[in-house]
Amino acid sequence: MKRSSIEESVMSVPSADLARKWLRHYASTEHMAGTRGDLEMAEFTRDKMQEFGLERAKIVPMDALLSYPIERHIEVVSTDDASQRWSPALEEAILEEDPTSGSRFRNLTFLAYAATGQARGEMVYANYGRPEDFEELEKRGIHVAGKIVLVRYGQCFRGLKIMNAQAFNASAVLIFSDPEDDGFGKGKVYPDGPWRPASSVQRGSAQFNSLCAGDPARAASGFDSKSRCGLERDELIPSIPAIPISYEDVTPLLERLGGPEAPHGFQGGLNLTYRLGPSSGWEATVEVNNTREVKPIWNVIAEIPGSLEADEDQPIVIGNHRDAWVFGAADPNSGSAVLLEVARALGKLVRDGWQPKRTIVLASWSGEEFGLLGSTGWGEANAGGLLKRAALYINTDVGVSGDTFYASASPSVGRAILHAAAVVVNPATGRPLLNDWDASLGTLGSGSDYTVFLDHLGIASMDLRFGASNSFTYGVYHSTYDSYTWIEKEADPTFAHHVALTRLIGVLAVRFSSSAVLPISLADHGAALSRYVDHLGELPKAGSLDLSVLRDAVRAYRESAVTAPLDNDLLGAHERLFLAPEGLPQRPWFKHVLQAPGLYLGYDAKVFPGIDQAVSDGDGALAQSLVARYADLLRSAAARVGRPQASSSLPPQART
Amino acid sequence: MKRSSIEESVMSVPSADLARKWLRHYASTEHMAGTRGDLEMAEFTRDKMQEFGLERAKIVPMDALLSYPIERHIEVVSTDDASQRWSPALEEAILEEDPTSGSRFRNLTFLAYAATGQARGEMVYANYGRPEDFEELEKRGIHVAGKIVLVRYGQCFRGLKIMNAQAFNASAVLIFSDPEDDGFGKGKVYPDGPWRPASSVQRGSAQFNSLCAGDPARAASGFDSKSRCGLERDELIPSIPAIPISYEDVTPLLERLGGPEAPHGFQGGLNLTYRLGPSSGWEATVEVNNTREVKPIWNVIAEIPGSLEADEDQPIVIGNHRDAWVFGAADPNSGSAVLLEVARALGKLVRDGWQPKRTIVLASWSGEEFGLLGSTGWGEANAGGLLKRAALYINTDVGVSGDTFYASASPSVGRAILHAAAVVVNPATGRPLLNDWDASLGTLGSGSDYTVFLDHLGIASMDLRFGASNSFTYGVYHSTYDSYTWIEKEADPTFAHHVALTRLIGVLAVRFSSSAVLPISLADHGAALSRYVDHLGELPKAGSLDLSVLRDAVRAYRESAVTAPLDNDLLGAHERLFLAPEGLPQRPWFKHVLQAPGLYLGYDAKVFPGIDQAVSDGDGALAQSLVARYADLLRSAAARVGRPQASSSLPPQART
Repeated sequence: MKRSSIEESVMSVPSADLARKWLRHYASTEHMAGTRGDLEMAEFTRDKMQEFGLERAKIVPMDALLSYPIERHIEVVSTDDASQRWSPALEEAILEEDPTSGSRFRNLTFLAYAATGQARGEMVYANYGRPEDFEELEKRGIHVAGKIVLVRYGQCFRGLKIMNAQAFNASAVLIFSDPEDDGFGKGKVYPDGPWRPASSVQRGSAQFNSLCAGDPARAASGFDSKSRCGLERDELIPSIPAIPISYEDVTPLLERLGGPEAPHGFQGGLNLTYRLGPSSGWEATVEVNNTREVKPIWNVIAEIPGSLEADEDQPIVIGNHRDAWVFGAADPNSGSAVLLEVARALGKLVRDGWQPKRTIVLASWSGEEFGLLGSTGWGEANAGGLLKRAALYINTDVGVSGDTFYASASPSVGRAILHAAAVVVNPATGRPLLNDWDASLGTLGSGSDYTVFLDHLGIASMDLRFGASNSFTYGVYHSTYDSYTWIEKEADPTFAHHVALTRLIGVLAVRFSSSAVLPISLADHGAALSRYVDHLGELPKAGSLDLSVLRDAVRAYRESAVTAPLDNDLLGAHERLFLAPEGLPQRPWFKHVLQAPGLYLGYDAKVFPGIDQAVSDGDGALAQSLVARYADLLRSAAARVGRPQASSSLPPQART
Repeated sequence: MKRSSIEESVMSVPSADLARKWLRHYASTEHMAGTRGDLEMAEFTRDKMQEFGLERAKIVPMDALLSYPIERHIEVVSTDDASQRWSPALEEAILEEDPTSGSRFRNLTFLAYAATGQARGEMVYANYGRPEDFEELEKRGIHVAGKIVLVRYGQCFRGLKIMNAQAFNASAVLIFSDPEDDGFGKGKVYPDGPWRPASSVQRGSAQFNSLCAGDPARAASGFDSKSRCGLERDELIPSIPAIPISYEDVTPLLERLGGPEAPHGFQGGLNLTYRLGPSSGWEATVEVNNTREVKPIWNVIAEIPGSLEADEDQPIVIGNHRDAWVFGAADPNSGSAVLLEVARALGKLVRDGWQPKRTIVLASWSGEEFGLLGSTGWGEANAGGLLKRAALYINTDVGVSGDTFYASASPSVGRAILHAAAVVVNPATGRPLLNDWDASLGTLGSGSDYTVFLDHLGIASMDLRFGASNSFTYGVYHSTYDSYTWIEKEADPTFAHHVALTRLIGVLAVRFSSSAVLPISLADHGAALSRYVDHLGELPKAGSLDLSVLRDAVRAYRESAVTAPLDNDLLGAHERLFLAPEGLPQRPWFKHVLQAPGLYLGYDAKVFPGIDQAVSDGDGALAQSLVARYADLLRSAAARVGRPQASSSLPPQART
């Protein structure tokens, strides 16, 4: 088959009607990881992939520590008059307009892995729960120790808010959705618009995701978290109780806070003056009963074998998670519907006689919501096998939650996304996707399944999605209202964006798997390195940090890169040149020295994260020593790029 | 204080209004073991006991393996036409007449510790799930291996039905309430009468309770089940999934059974011909997702110290469990309301200046429903301390579920119950309780908290209750409908039976704790021994079993007993003479050779259970050797009874 007719095929096969049908099925039942809904959807995914011609599709089970809600309770009692007491309902309202909103999970809102236990005491308010927020409280003489801390969602991963609160000896954490960031401050609320309504709760994992990805126990497979992550299980998940709470339910709690008025940056969207606390005259009780138990989850893996011999093959992995907190229409099953359409498009090509040069793997992950359990477990298990020579990981998670296209990627594969976006027509606009995209590339942090591939295994990665233009997330994220009805009403009524994303991933899969030369640009990578070093120099606390050896190394790398021969072995394994076997300070599982989720961010990335964090911590000596270490690493990379060799002499991947 | 005025006080203090008040509070919220409702009720119990003058009342936490429901699902599908499928709702209906029937637990019916997993296959029907029922199926060529087995409740403990099904290699078990035994066959159904309505489900533990009591894992305390029970954890709880099901939900399953008509003894109360199966043409799927996790539970322990020195003290323990599957109005909180009134009556005496000679301990256990977790854990932990010289354990569990008085007891303390019943006026009748009681004493099997005290530690025990005249259990047992409303409408509208039971326990507590000589009768014990040996001789398979040495030993014991001096050290420790350190065959945790729950019964007792089981198994050699062993034990007992010595020379208690 000609390349043009192959690309025409992956453009024309994807169907809005079928994407709608798959999404409707995925969102027809609750399918939290490890539950029967999850297994049912795994079987459905495997069966459909097989039906589409990917005969090798199979379910790959694994065990992992899961956490389910048994009960949770919050109560405030007047210290003067114990008969004055109030308890929030902690229930998402049933909406007549949304037929699945009566799910039994609507009153099982919880934070997975939050500790079982009870806390009692005064409340304080700590803004977004970042270290600087807690420091601001202490500076003002508001002590967090022994207190129940209210924090709002946003700015960093929720588990890290709890990690920070623990570091300040808080007794419990309540994380609320503030309407400014996540509610009527953004626009009309569901069912009148796409944004979070008053009773809606953002569930989620309380794992400390910037420290390690994957199963925090891994007891089932004989590993333990210490040998895998360099950290004990109890350093990776909370030791205090925590509960997520709606803006309706948090209002009476915030109203009971006394103490000084909170500074400007702490004020949120509720119609009250936010105070720092404590809640003098009111004592709160927070009780959590969550399970923590090792249970099976199910990845679905479908291989399309490439025509190259194993020692020349450079597999391309395309993944999307399947598990959801409730129905998960946007998160992640808009992506799952896209993945099935990609499977159908590739399956049709296979049936038409096409074979990619390089193996393509389609993966439907489970356990992502709990902490990237399925992708990390599979990634680690296949590090020495299928993934040893993998050239690319393409991720989509919340594939469609709005109409604005976003891409984050390793710099070396960014240009390939631009080129694909130039040929993919977005049926929503009738124009190439590139025309309505600002062509900016985000840096990959964490919070989705690319993490093990990029940060642990050094495989170039990309994450693709359509989202809201004015929010990192979307209005019904991790709530019961993330339903088929919401998608149809608020996000993609025609399913045109599902089709556009399918086309884009399809074209990328074809190009990466079948082009003679991998579309990976070392020059682009070099340009990013320069930006990264410039960024370090601009850090507010950079002070006396001497970056000259690093700048020299980047210069050497860039010189080698522009003249490097187009050698697939080098291109496919190039990202691995930036892995350090010792990993990052405080979190050795993260091997990639160029980017990682910020230690206190979780979702968002830092570049040269080890140096950035050391600077931020005021540890100049560590920062300077990392500059030297990474300059060495970059010089070695420059040397390799300048003289490509057989891949066997490239640095081996990190193994666990 | 005079003895008569003391007894008058414990007769007059108990109040129907207060018993009603306590019960209403206990039944106001769900309080499954380990949940916040359980802790809340533990705090309530402790606070009330302290308020009543038992200042030492305290919460004693312990860790134990618990099991909570995440999800369960049953589906039958036609093998000819996959579109023909049906799933039972597995939900208890909301009743307008019962305001708490909307509990979120109404659709979380489950069997604790049943294995997480999925089974698929044909169904068969195995009556009550006893070994003889399975043998009947095999005899008729109906093979159970790989099948999903339907069994009905009744005749034996539910966990043992699963144990038996596993032994025949069944893949899953569905246990249903048959209306003949447990529904309209008994009378009008709730809310029109006290009996089980169509959608009601009997939850419960799936532990193999005849093999060992208490935590099946005990990992938390460093013990393991092997060292504690002589059996591995996985020999004590199911390895296959199992679900309890209502007679409404089971009907369409039974209707799909083919094969021969079931024999007469298998036919139940539903309007259909019960068949043995298999369900040709229909395949069933059974899916269970239960947690199994070590969590804290909370006993409440209140001591009233006796005036005797520790080396003369012989504590009396009065216990009732507090944890419930849902609201637990009858089971166990009718007993808990009684326990609080007993505490109030004794507390009043203490405030009036009374002190018992012997220490009285009031205990509110948790975790009973899962497998006597709280009482067993506390009993084992205190075997060498407070319980070393304990003389009596008084249990009440389902204190009031009807108007008929029942007592089961160690024979040596039966007469004390009769004497107390002669002086306790039952306000429901205005006459002494004895007048309306047939004065028959049951033998203690298992299924409630006396088990560790009697069977493991050799402490004379009794179990007291008011129940239905025509059923071992009661109509809403282990369902959402076991509510305050049910008690008020159907079981004890005036709370007179609560008062009668309080008075009885109060009088027994006073007499056992304060009489100069413990009211324990060795002669009565001797008479029971004769009956037990006669029973062995009458076993259908006794055949050539030679009981003469045992008869001789009983004769020797009885001769010593009638002339034994009234020595408290002997009387209080007498029951321990019948413990064998090696325990019973197949279940070494059960040390008492005279009675135990039948190995295939669970609730009901067998006497000389080791011999009885060996005879039943056709193992004549074992039976004969046990006859010799127990004859030795009885001869030693006779020798000790004939020459009472310092208690230190009595056999030490079994330790764990």
